Amino acid sequence: MTTSRPGGDRGAGVTAAKEGDFSAWYTQVVTRAELADYAPVKGLIVLRPDGYAIWEAVRGALDARFAERGVRNGFLPVLIPESLLGREKEHFEGFNPEVFWVTRSGNDEIGDRLALRPTSEALAYTMYSKWIQSWRDLPLRMNFWNTALRAEIKGTKPFLRTSEFLWQEGHTAHATEQEARDEVAAMLGIYGSVVRDELAIPVIHGDKSEREKFVGAVYTSAIESVMPDGRALQMGTSHFLGTNFSGPFGIRYSDRENREHLAWQTSWGVSWRLIGAMIMVHGDDNGLVLPPRVAPVQAVVVPIVRGDAAAVAGAARAALAALRGAGVRAVIDEREGFSPGYKFNYWELRGVPLRIEVGPRDAAASKVTISRRYDRSRSELGAGELGRIPGMLEEIQRAMLARAEEAAGRLTHRAGSYGELAELAGRGLVYAAWCGGGKCEERVKEETGAEIRVVPPGGADGAACVVCGAGASSVPVFARGY
Amino acid sequence: MTTSRPGGDRGAGVTAAKEGDFSAWYTQVVTRAELADYAPVKGLIVLRPDGYAIWEAVRGALDARFAERGVRNGFLPVLIPESLLGREKEHFEGFNPEVFWVTRSGNDEIGDRLALRPTSEALAYTMYSKWIQSWRDLPLRMNFWNTALRAEIKGTKPFLRTSEFLWQEGHTAHATEQEARDEVAAMLGIYGSVVRDELAIPVIHGDKSEREKFVGAVYTSAIESVMPDGRALQMGTSHFLGTNFSGPFGIRYSDRENREHLAWQTSWGVSWRLIGAMIMVHGDDNGLVLPPRVAPVQAVVVPIVRGDAAAVAGAARAALAALRGAGVRAVIDEREGFSPGYKFNYWELRGVPLRIEVGPRDAAASKVTISRRYDRSRSELGAGELGRIPGMLEEIQRAMLARAEEAAGRLTHRAGSYGELAELAGRGLVYAAWCGGGKCEERVKEETGAEIRVVPPGGADGAACVVCGAGASSVPVFARGY
Repeated sequence: MTTSRPGGDRGAGVTAAKEGDFSAWYTQVVTRAELADYAPVKGLIVLRPDGYAIWEAVRGALDARFAERGVRNGFLPVLIPESLLGREKEHFEGFNPEVFWVTRSGNDEIGDRLALRPTSEALAYTMYSKWIQSWRDLPLRMNFWNTALRAEIKGTKPFLRTSEFLWQEGHTAHATEQEARDEVAAMLGIYGSVVRDELAIPVIHGDKSEREKFVGAVYTSAIESVMPDGRALQMGTSHFLGTNFSGPFGIRYSDRENREHLAWQTSWGVSWRLIGAMIMVHGDDNGLVLPPRVAPVQAVVVPIVRGDAAAVAGAARAALAALRGAGVRAVIDEREGFSPGYKFNYWELRGVPLRIEVGPRDAAASKVTISRRYDRSRSELGAGELGRIPGMLEEIQRAMLARAEEAAGRLTHRAGSYGELAELAGRGLVYAAWCGGGKCEERVKEETGAEIRVVPPGGADGAACVVCGAGASSVPVFARGY
Repeated sequence: MTTSRPGGDRGAGVTAAKEGDFSAWYTQVVTRAELADYAPVKGLIVLRPDGYAIWEAVRGALDARFAERGVRNGFLPVLIPESLLGREKEHFEGFNPEVFWVTRSGNDEIGDRLALRPTSEALAYTMYSKWIQSWRDLPLRMNFWNTALRAEIKGTKPFLRTSEFLWQEGHTAHATEQEARDEVAAMLGIYGSVVRDELAIPVIHGDKSEREKFVGAVYTSAIESVMPDGRALQMGTSHFLGTNFSGPFGIRYSDRENREHLAWQTSWGVSWRLIGAMIMVHGDDNGLVLPPRVAPVQAVVVPIVRGDAAAVAGAARAALAALRGAGVRAVIDEREGFSPGYKFNYWELRGVPLRIEVGPRDAAASKVTISRRYDRSRSELGAGELGRIPGMLEEIQRAMLARAEEAAGRLTHRAGSYGELAELAGRGLVYAAWCGGGKCEERVKEETGAEIRVVPPGGADGAACVVCGAGASSVPVFARGY
């Protein structure tokens, strides 16, 4: 294949080493495993079928959990008038520098210019103020699968730093403060379970510091994970908005005694950055490694045609049928003109959890040879035992989580002093006691590059702030972040 | 409930008559059945949970058929540089007047201004030119679930005329012209089957005239349906692009002998306007009437609490469990403080296909009373026979299609002369022989308001053009359209 045209690294494997040049490795995996490609506008990417299918798997897992909780999906347009976006001042100022503005339609100038949705609080809550009138209308729980647009000036990084990204944003309104606070925690719990159970990535739950919280929120809770390069990635956020938005947007309800109150609100979201995390945590020097639950293809059957081609083809197709019958997302690679070795590399690069090889000897002995992507282990299985593959996939899912937990453990540290914190910053997550003061937080950030990623629940157990030595109120996780 | 605030018609039923003021009736059904609401920007709407759930049902039906054909989903960003959009001149000029332009990001002016996607040919094919190099890369079949943005200057009409709309756009590339032509037909066939089988709406298949085809296409095929007011609605289009785009965008492949060729292409799409058609075709003066296959709720259990409340509640909940066990999307309305009559109206307005009433006498006799939304017929069923409900829903689905076919038949005419055509225009679809000339087409449009909606396959069987009297080449469907 030619490599002279743009996109011509297609067909090539990953050449960068994960431990050598993590950043180059990541980009190669994304583009060469054909998850995504760069769009012709700086900051924008395109998802290819495997990339989108993984997003659909994440969406399906979240949708099922949302529905159980009574959250229903809706649609909001991408255009938000500036006057509306500006209604909650702090929120607006937070997003303003990165907003794309529509100023013309056809040849006409637009009066109140239109923002491309950086997030939909302003628009959703304008609607909620119409829809909510009495206690009977509460709680209102809606979710929106759409994209958000925020102009990124730094270098594009597929799934991690793009000017448009796929996400979901949930918006709820409640009659009581407690119910809204419980909602914030419940949604973060859902995020944690999806990331852990579907993407096989361990997470840490907690709150953001004042400095790092969502603009307009009373507080922001978040889940964070550590990536193999030691940097932390925010995996999902759930915000308690209090009445900060229901006030300016006029979301009021009358209770059973006909008294009027402001509604209590939450918003919460995860984005395709979860896919970025999955790539970083599980991938290896051969490319992508997909957790079976979200893998578009869970098993690929590769017939190895030598000698009795008809027998091999027959056995391979029977294996495919058996796999599909067992509910496995399986394909067969019968392409002519490609060697078995080429095909092995092709599907390894794409992260398919299981390869089922059927050669002449396998066919003759009524068996198949199985190769696991995540640890490259091999075993044999009787052709009649393919019903065990779903169980094997679940085992792999569990083993990938266990391996990721071990890796995260090696990248998680505790610092008893400022010196230790400074030394460990950049080498993973660092727990260190903190007085809660913004000045100490700032100093750590300025001097070490590490910021408070999340403050897990629980106090500091009498410890002293590693920065100022005053009594600590919590033991946050410090890390350099994405 | 108060009606003084915006959105305050909530809780009210439909007051406009479908046959009296069709347009007002339509808007009332959309907003009062809570499918959609107007966003704060002219031309834009918001989907509420039931509206979005219907779209999800349509999406699911299409996705299943796309997957069978080897079409896979992807993601494209909403921003397209002007320089790219302008690469296929005719295409660009067609869309230019209705394009929203992003000219600023944050406080910075953007050099090459960015269009909000009016359709994605330009962007998709820029990517395809990278991805397609050899015959091995063909056919390439991708679909994108996103929104399109086209500034609408005429009055907003939810689902029918909005400046942003949910749709899917499929884009394929093929090695041969014949394969691409077959693809165009196959995709139109999928659209026809989904509209007919899921939405219970009959359609007419055919080609658009030169005047009405997609800008940039060699030809456009389409499905059209007639609405109860006699106007035609374009339900879906499938375009044969030939090499009109692969030329300017450089989509070339080398064949097995290493000779280079331009790829042959298609694009095709349906939008949420299908929901608009469903509302118009099936709705009645009590509101929405949903075909069971796309209904978010297929059956609502309404306990009628008089006398032995515990017995009724128990029987109603048992009925709910039985329905869900049978795979029916069922809910129960146990809200306190609302009369049975209020609840009946509430669920009728929302178009739920079946209401299952459980009163004291029903509970005592171990039976339920069933009311069908589409024809308001009532019957009784033993509490142990609720497993028959799925079959009943399928019967309703078929009966709704049959009824819609009859109604469409009454609105379909044949004109043997220009006078007849002029008289029938505005009263439905009119088949009339045509010479194929643009002047005759123009004259009909100017004098009667009817345009050629679709040219079904087959010739004119020796008939003369109803306009000029010359030999006719086809018998198109003329109608005033949406």
